[in-house]
Amino acid sequence: MILRMSQLFVRTLRDDPADAEVPSHRLLVRAGYVRRVAPGIFSWLPLGYRVYRNVERIVREEMDAAGFQEVHFPALLPREPYERTGRWTEYGDNLFRLQDRRGNDMLLGPTHEEMFTLMVKGEYSSYKDLPLCIYQIQTKYRDEARPRAGILRGREFVMKDSYSFDVDDEGLARSYARHRDAYISTFDRLALDYIIVGAMSGAMGGSKSEEFLAPTPVGEDTFVKCTVCDYAANVEAMRTVAPPTIPPAESPALHVEETPDTPTIETLVAVANSEALRRPDREWTAADTLKNVVLITTDVEGTESPLVIGVPGDRDVDIRRLEAAVHPLAARPFEEADFAKFPGLVKGYIGPQALGEARGLRYLVDPRVVIGTRWITGANQVGHHVFDLVCGRDFTPDGVIDVAEIVGGDPCPECGSAVTIARGIEIGHIFQLGRKYAEALDLEVLDETGTRITVTMGSYGIGVSRAVAAIAEQHHDDKGLVWPREVAPADVHIVVAGKDDDAYEFADGLATDLDDLGVRILIDDRRGVSPGVKFNDSELLGIPTIVVVGKGLAAGVVEVKDRRTGDRTDVATSDISEYLRGLVLAS
Amino acid sequence: MILRMSQLFVRTLRDDPADAEVPSHRLLVRAGYVRRVAPGIFSWLPLGYRVYRNVERIVREEMDAAGFQEVHFPALLPREPYERTGRWTEYGDNLFRLQDRRGNDMLLGPTHEEMFTLMVKGEYSSYKDLPLCIYQIQTKYRDEARPRAGILRGREFVMKDSYSFDVDDEGLARSYARHRDAYISTFDRLALDYIIVGAMSGAMGGSKSEEFLAPTPVGEDTFVKCTVCDYAANVEAMRTVAPPTIPPAESPALHVEETPDTPTIETLVAVANSEALRRPDREWTAADTLKNVVLITTDVEGTESPLVIGVPGDRDVDIRRLEAAVHPLAARPFEEADFAKFPGLVKGYIGPQALGEARGLRYLVDPRVVIGTRWITGANQVGHHVFDLVCGRDFTPDGVIDVAEIVGGDPCPECGSAVTIARGIEIGHIFQLGRKYAEALDLEVLDETGTRITVTMGSYGIGVSRAVAAIAEQHHDDKGLVWPREVAPADVHIVVAGKDDDAYEFADGLATDLDDLGVRILIDDRRGVSPGVKFNDSELLGIPTIVVVGKGLAAGVVEVKDRRTGDRTDVATSDISEYLRGLVLAS
Repeated sequence: MILRMSQLFVRTLRDDPADAEVPSHRLLVRAGYVRRVAPGIFSWLPLGYRVYRNVERIVREEMDAAGFQEVHFPALLPREPYERTGRWTEYGDNLFRLQDRRGNDMLLGPTHEEMFTLMVKGEYSSYKDLPLCIYQIQTKYRDEARPRAGILRGREFVMKDSYSFDVDDEGLARSYARHRDAYISTFDRLALDYIIVGAMSGAMGGSKSEEFLAPTPVGEDTFVKCTVCDYAANVEAMRTVAPPTIPPAESPALHVEETPDTPTIETLVAVANSEALRRPDREWTAADTLKNVVLITTDVEGTESPLVIGVPGDRDVDIRRLEAAVHPLAARPFEEADFAKFPGLVKGYIGPQALGEARGLRYLVDPRVVIGTRWITGANQVGHHVFDLVCGRDFTPDGVIDVAEIVGGDPCPECGSAVTIARGIEIGHIFQLGRKYAEALDLEVLDETGTRITVTMGSYGIGVSRAVAAIAEQHHDDKGLVWPREVAPADVHIVVAGKDDDAYEFADGLATDLDDLGVRILIDDRRGVSPGVKFNDSELLGIPTIVVVGKGLAAGVVEVKDRRTGDRTDVATSDISEYLRGLVLAS
Repeated sequence: MILRMSQLFVRTLRDDPADAEVPSHRLLVRAGYVRRVAPGIFSWLPLGYRVYRNVERIVREEMDAAGFQEVHFPALLPREPYERTGRWTEYGDNLFRLQDRRGNDMLLGPTHEEMFTLMVKGEYSSYKDLPLCIYQIQTKYRDEARPRAGILRGREFVMKDSYSFDVDDEGLARSYARHRDAYISTFDRLALDYIIVGAMSGAMGGSKSEEFLAPTPVGEDTFVKCTVCDYAANVEAMRTVAPPTIPPAESPALHVEETPDTPTIETLVAVANSEALRRPDREWTAADTLKNVVLITTDVEGTESPLVIGVPGDRDVDIRRLEAAVHPLAARPFEEADFAKFPGLVKGYIGPQALGEARGLRYLVDPRVVIGTRWITGANQVGHHVFDLVCGRDFTPDGVIDVAEIVGGDPCPECGSAVTIARGIEIGHIFQLGRKYAEALDLEVLDETGTRITVTMGSYGIGVSRAVAAIAEQHHDDKGLVWPREVAPADVHIVVAGKDDDAYEFADGLATDLDDLGVRILIDDRRGVSPGVKFNDSELLGIPTIVVVGKGLAAGVVEVKDRRTGDRTDVATSDISEYLRGLVLAS
């Protein structure tokens, strides 16, 4: 099928849309690939839908090649299974909920663990039936608080979600590895640059988990990567290296000091390094101060509890690491009303000695706060700080929580070398769920001895519609999109730049020849549109090979341009079909 | 890809599911093609999804071949466009409505006229851009009052919906004809037996409309077909032929008679034919009585109004014809409380003389109630009927409404011959919307003279998931499904009926050979399952060609069975690959 610009339902835009924050969004809108319908909700125009379908096809082919079987679930689901696993409540405002005409509670599926578990339970009953890997490519719904970046983070989107079912942990590990391999093949074919990082299991429960991230500055995920070894992790899953403990006896006794005008860590450190308070061996730094951050956590039933987190003063609590760590609890900072309930807390001067479960203020500290470390921290008295407060000697936290922000240069938990930090788009996520869903929904099979055993599961996702945006994010330049061939809406974009009928006729004949050879063609056959506009559109649309039928035609040549490199070659009209066919087949 | 029963995620059921009313539902569940998740909401298992995807592919190929361009809209939509066309309200309980986390009203799209109109409005502005035909294949939602028959009438289903945009009526007629042709090609390829019938435009507004119905006794639509000419219509759109008027003077004067014990039309006719009251020229029949049915209609704002419909006593009001005629009003029978509001209405004895707009009781009559016709009807007095009440002389209705039931033998409105009545499944619907949506949403383009003109539209639907059920309904026997080859989940089902390894090895080699030749294979390679069970499963699953590798193998033959005809042929093992390849290519 030849796509003709003269008839194609597409209008390119000269200007960037006002609401587009990231390149992929800007270019997909300008090139007429997608249109916004509501916040986080988009429509696909013909060229965009072709790219989407190419991505979907590649994902499906790779899943099929891995031996996974395709099924398909509805998006509109009954409440009951999600009630049994607790997710009806845990999802909070992220879940689209509705009632049908009979008043039954329903939801738009954000992911389908429950439904897959119940389907397998309905069909299978023996260890002989397993292992099983099944998947679907399906529209999902999440009522994101901040839908953004076009189709990168939408409220309606397409996901490929797979689930594995095994009788034991070794089986789960094998199913997990099969998915990991299939994802590598998939993302390679999608021409995505990606990194596999360790991840938190987050909302899903379970144990081992990895994410496939496509590095790009506009990504919503932050990851660390060791500069020396293979370690890479989502920042939420990064483990902070605890220093060795120190014998407490080596530190001086604690002493409370007046520290006026120290509203910030910086001013506090300056005062600490003043003549009166300075440390003999070296200067005090922000990392010697212990900042106690007071929070209120809320569980899924809405019950609030205070939580205090102690972190070295050179770092803040990373809100996304915190959310991941306390999930499904939500957390917010203390407000005035909260302080009123805890008169022992002196705002700005909170110290460990006023904290702890015994005082109703659960107190967790950063892994760096080990036995024997000495700190400058609040003295629970306005205008005063305590110096040389030693962990394990002068205070004992209730536990450890690893939620401080990570910065470049932090030590790798595997080898101790410095890590770097970068951003990426989550394009895939694989994890070993274990028995959480099988237990909640009673998915059991009989083993060799006739004993009922609970099945262990894995869950694996690829953002199919998001991948289109991720590809656009990694494959564009300042002139427009630059599609990898297999996902491009066409192989060759023929631009008729000449004005006379000869050019149109030649281009049309070439399009027909190439179409017969299986080369996918977009031809800009618009009359009365200037060559300049056509060239700009061809750069914007991003078909990998551009053929210009213009003034060279009289001399028997047309120009072939590589959209990515910009390289131009004149090719004889007699050879052009074979030349282009070769080009397409080779890539 | 070879499908192996030993690994395929499918379990066939020996018994019919308790809730299955129709053959397609029974067999699709028993054969492990679909599973119910909630009322009217189903999941597809691997074999079922293969059939679904084949149907989807055929529909897409035929739309593309017709030159229609594929786009894709979200299912989750904002309220506003549907508010502007009135359908937010008109859809009533059939619409799934919900609110997002910010309290915005949203809906799950039941059909996308509004969204397509707005998309074209956003991109196009000139008559030169038209005509345009665009389509999508997409999941739709309708909160049916009575979801039934499995995937035949679900609440979540897949539709192909196309929309055409033209500058004038001639253009619309051409776009309509192109869709009609494309639908014929599509349904022919789907091996569906169908009839094209005239239809009401119903909820859509607009003018010309036709439905593609697949005749089957379980169909929800009833259609009439002339036994002589080409006329065919959905029963809702059937026109009743009005008889010629009669000069009123020819009838005797009206007279009221005591008619005790006449609770039914039958008993009334018997009394009318008694000595005292009988008609000299012929017997009275039920068709001489005028039955006045009292109803309450409710408009979209909920305002109730009474409506009385007079039909010949040998017919009832057909509720679906009524709903189609008064749409978007809803109608229900009078209840006691309604009678209390109209003391002039004597239940069981309502006559035209107590009716009419002047009395607040709008009175419409069947087309057969023409000027001069004489009737036996209620005398508005308990135990009394009036005889020889003549239309136009003794009463004047407020208008005509054609909603009486249609019966076989009724006259064709085109040629007057008898019509027959049958049932069918609506598999496609095409209609000329006209300017309703373009006007509501201001879709205008500039014409040749620079004048703004309103675009005229058509809307065209195919039930994609429903087509799977319709095909199953038309292609099955008492043993199971019998798929047409192009939609079947495989071309050839190889059944290993022998017990020794030779049979398994031969079958496996044959499967590989055929797979290499592009023949789609399902192989029943289950060990320890009896040949009888395998044969039954092969009948139930309905792959068009079954190859039995059994005891003939020693003599160098396998058996090839045609699932539809039951014909069996022994084929030499040396020839079997080529034989099957030829069979598949030929069909």
